[in-house]
Amino acid sequence: MKFCTHCGNSVVLRIPAGDDRERFVCSSCELIHYTNPRVIVGCVPVYEGKVLLCKRAIEPRKNYWTLPAGFMENGETSVQGAARETWEEARARVSNIDLYRVFDVPYISQIYMFYRCDLDHGEHAAGPESLETGLYDESTVPWDDIAFPVITQTLKEYFADAAAGHYPVRVSAIEYRPRR
Amino acid sequence: MKFCTHCGNSVVLRIPAGDDRERFVCSSCELIHYTNPRVIVGCVPVYEGKVLLCKRAIEPRKNYWTLPAGFMENGETSVQGAARETWEEARARVSNIDLYRVFDVPYISQIYMFYRCDLDHGEHAAGPESLETGLYDESTVPWDDIAFPVITQTLKEYFADAAAGHYPVRVSAIEYRPRR
Repeated sequence: MKFCTHCGNSVVLRIPAGDDRERFVCSSCELIHYTNPRVIVGCVPVYEGKVLLCKRAIEPRKNYWTLPAGFMENGETSVQGAARETWEEARARVSNIDLYRVFDVPYISQIYMFYRCDLDHGEHAAGPESLETGLYDESTVPWDDIAFPVITQTLKEYFADAAAGHYPVRVSAIEYRPRR
Repeated sequence: MKFCTHCGNSVVLRIPAGDDRERFVCSSCELIHYTNPRVIVGCVPVYEGKVLLCKRAIEPRKNYWTLPAGFMENGETSVQGAARETWEEARARVSNIDLYRVFDVPYISQIYMFYRCDLDHGEHAAGPESLETGLYDESTVPWDDIAFPVITQTLKEYFADAAAGHYPVRVSAIEYRPRR
């Protein structure tokens, strides 16, 4: 960040009065520009025990498989955002949407929220950001070609929880850098 | 937003190619400026069945009572943020921190995450943003002087859950505007 969004003059990085960390502050109008973590919302859509995955058509991790997920937008709820991303990436409608998994990823200032849900009628198709979509059980998931560690972990937990018949909400942090 | 953070020229509100909603886009360098919901993290600190509340020293809702909470910062986890805010506002250390309550507040593009936790040694004191702090059971909570509807709802649910002995993670949206 180099310039103030309000007056267009240059910003400097300093600790504002009464604060305890550096912020970008306008050298002219003194507006403080806060930046905060972004929320990524997604779904674990399930149909007849199988989970819906999408093969990514875009970088990063093009050609690798993921759960439908993306940045939460202003003006929507996290549940609406998770359902929207599932429509956009997998042309799938979902219902019975329950919070299932939260991952903090502090080194990139992101927080992931995955919702477990039913895939309506088992219907899905590739949206513009996906090359293909498919339903997978534990034995057929392309485990060696999953896009991100949070997806692998969520899928492993899901299949274990499904076998046990209960689905606790888990929160943990990803402290390492995913392979790229 | 009027000016580009990267080059200082003016921005315009338009739908970028491949997108489906308006963004601020620089008229010169074409940088797209995304804005996303902010996360507010907080705690429900409990000691001997009583919940720690803070009387607000700042607007909005100065002189009203709240749970310790505030904006999640870049580079921290949601759990770390909730504990940090509890220290800043109530000079309290907490442990056994478990996700308890999520509120989406889409009309102000915020998402609240409250963590249930133990208040270490029952120790607390007013931080700079609080006038006083105190431990309250259900019968002594100042119900008529709670700062925000999400706080009232979280406290009511907490005392009911404590009586029942189990603490499901709940997610819901606040669709109305709180009194101010």
